[in-house]
Amino acid sequence: MRHELILNNDNKLIFLILDGVGDIPNPQFSYTTPLEAAKKPNIDSLAREKGILGRIIPVDIGITPGSGPGHLSLFGYDPLEHEIGRGVLEVLGLNMDLQDGDLAARANFCTIRDNIVVDRRAGRIPTEETVRICEKISSAIPEIEGVKLLIKPGKSHRFAVIFRGKNLSEHLTDADPHKDHLPVVFSEPKDDKAIFASHIVNTFIEKVAVLLKGEKAANGVLLRGFSAKPAIPSFSDNYGMKALAIATYPMYRGIAKVLGMDVKDETKDYQEMLKALRDNYDSYQFFFLHIKETDLAGEDGNFPQKVAAIETVDPMIPEIYSLNPQVLVITGDHSTPCPMKGHSWHPVPLLLVTKTGERDGMAFHEKNCVTGSIGTIYSKQLMPLVLAHGLRLDKYGA
Amino acid sequence: MRHELILNNDNKLIFLILDGVGDIPNPQFSYTTPLEAAKKPNIDSLAREKGILGRIIPVDIGITPGSGPGHLSLFGYDPLEHEIGRGVLEVLGLNMDLQDGDLAARANFCTIRDNIVVDRRAGRIPTEETVRICEKISSAIPEIEGVKLLIKPGKSHRFAVIFRGKNLSEHLTDADPHKDHLPVVFSEPKDDKAIFASHIVNTFIEKVAVLLKGEKAANGVLLRGFSAKPAIPSFSDNYGMKALAIATYPMYRGIAKVLGMDVKDETKDYQEMLKALRDNYDSYQFFFLHIKETDLAGEDGNFPQKVAAIETVDPMIPEIYSLNPQVLVITGDHSTPCPMKGHSWHPVPLLLVTKTGERDGMAFHEKNCVTGSIGTIYSKQLMPLVLAHGLRLDKYGA
Repeated sequence: MRHELILNNDNKLIFLILDGVGDIPNPQFSYTTPLEAAKKPNIDSLAREKGILGRIIPVDIGITPGSGPGHLSLFGYDPLEHEIGRGVLEVLGLNMDLQDGDLAARANFCTIRDNIVVDRRAGRIPTEETVRICEKISSAIPEIEGVKLLIKPGKSHRFAVIFRGKNLSEHLTDADPHKDHLPVVFSEPKDDKAIFASHIVNTFIEKVAVLLKGEKAANGVLLRGFSAKPAIPSFSDNYGMKALAIATYPMYRGIAKVLGMDVKDETKDYQEMLKALRDNYDSYQFFFLHIKETDLAGEDGNFPQKVAAIETVDPMIPEIYSLNPQVLVITGDHSTPCPMKGHSWHPVPLLLVTKTGERDGMAFHEKNCVTGSIGTIYSKQLMPLVLAHGLRLDKYGA
Repeated sequence: MRHELILNNDNKLIFLILDGVGDIPNPQFSYTTPLEAAKKPNIDSLAREKGILGRIIPVDIGITPGSGPGHLSLFGYDPLEHEIGRGVLEVLGLNMDLQDGDLAARANFCTIRDNIVVDRRAGRIPTEETVRICEKISSAIPEIEGVKLLIKPGKSHRFAVIFRGKNLSEHLTDADPHKDHLPVVFSEPKDDKAIFASHIVNTFIEKVAVLLKGEKAANGVLLRGFSAKPAIPSFSDNYGMKALAIATYPMYRGIAKVLGMDVKDETKDYQEMLKALRDNYDSYQFFFLHIKETDLAGEDGNFPQKVAAIETVDPMIPEIYSLNPQVLVITGDHSTPCPMKGHSWHPVPLLLVTKTGERDGMAFHEKNCVTGSIGTIYSKQLMPLVLAHGLRLDKYGA
């Protein structure tokens, strides 16, 4: 984006992101996709009357994106240039308060015998056990040489750690052998600036090993994905809009926070999301609404559940569109096809509801999106297109 | 373009550029576009029988181009790399003779009271007034310190200036407060090399102020868009073709001249354009025919007028194609959708009439172009494609 083309006005843009919505023709369901099979009268009538269709490729052809690159590209950032580390995504997903300078890591409990990691998942101990042991560690090791420790349990054997202090470089190797039956591994600094951070991390690992000597399964920890909050240009600065993120899942609020968006906390359901949108509509120009349920159904490989997730979103549309945004975008951060039970590389269906009067006159699903007038573009090209439709971009050249 | 692939032969390529031809489905006219609604039997039968379709994106997705970038990209130049300044476009549009080393500026008369610009447009004085005052300035200030002054009136309060002399750098800020009720602004040099140019420009502004003291409305001038004829590689050198531009509007002849094309002066109407094409057909390989009326209708938001403009061009086609060019290209430099009354970012419909025997079998309009076999490409990629169809590009690699 060329900053000098950005226009300032109060035109509203709404991104309704159905996580993992993209899918592929499903042999078990007459080769339809969930978007095609779902009854979604509100979305489809908007699509037919005021909508143009297309597809977005999150990272590149054939590349399956994680949630980080999927969302960065939606918001106009080059996902190959900017990165949100795994440790950062993990602490954001656990709703931990990540601050500038923090060093974040994904972690899990493991079983160690005679300095050999015999089970990297500590027999997949139940979540309650992880909660108990995390509390034990937090009480016993609140800090190491002035570096504060923040620990939060996840599901099963997983947890996350934030090291809060000065000079904590993220240039560290994983403290994880990555395979069972290999010796314990400590974190190595990748450069001289990371020597202090590796010392703190490794001291933590040693202290925990002493503390957990009596535990049967979980008597050690593995840490990986060391990362700091990335230095990414702010969304608002880039586009000259105040932006609000409304999401039920913490990870997506976290990603929005990393991009400098304001974040509406604690929306438990779609009704609360709509209320947050309504209540804040006058104070912002850009709104990011994140729906997680489509992705969960795709991950489960559950076609009827994904259809139901889409049909549950559809009744929100009249209220959203009654706010009269200049552009309403409905798309996903990536595809999560039910037959694949996971993220995929497939282009993501895209619907733009605009005020130019143009329309493709088609319902919103993958097959129509192939022939939509937007064509197939990269996700990072979506923001300029939406800004254009939002009348927020000046002419280039005389 | 890779020069080493260029082949030399006498195959003819014709670009028929309908300025701003691209449009969007129009709710007022049953969601048709002007190209779709126009009766253009000659274009459509050529399209169906020998045509392939696609779309071109002038600068980038979401970016609305001016005439400069629109045409530069059509001729295979990267519009982000090469630029034709605003001052240059203005003097070209007024048919002034721009030479190497000239410094060009857009200008207008304004009203100044107590060193405050109270009206940047001098009450939009009539064109006759501007003609009279421009003559007054030309007589009184023919040169400043050896720098010759060329002044030409435009419409209403607008005019253009060429400063002709040595060491006239274009690195100058606008001598324009850009808003009413702000103090008079002089031009500042952006670097040391532009000190002399800023001195000349500001001396001109001061001399004019003294000269126009008695005028009621137009007692000052604002100058902006300082620019020199850009150093752009010649079209003929790039592609190994002699090129002729035929256009009724001076700005497009001017752009062609900047690219080193020969220019046919004074074609008043389409019959004269056809005659110029016929008379010069043997002496050139590339022909750029520019039609302005489609853009004018789009700018006016006048759908029937745009339909009529297309229908007026259609009868030219049999005579143009009877010359038997290797490739006939019909497209635009950008879209000017009637509902938007101005240039837009929308991809531009593209028709290539070729001699390969291939065809898409469809009439020429935006909707068919979405599914045409060329696909959606960047305008700067059009020249290589046309050269290929013109059998003017060698194989790359063994």
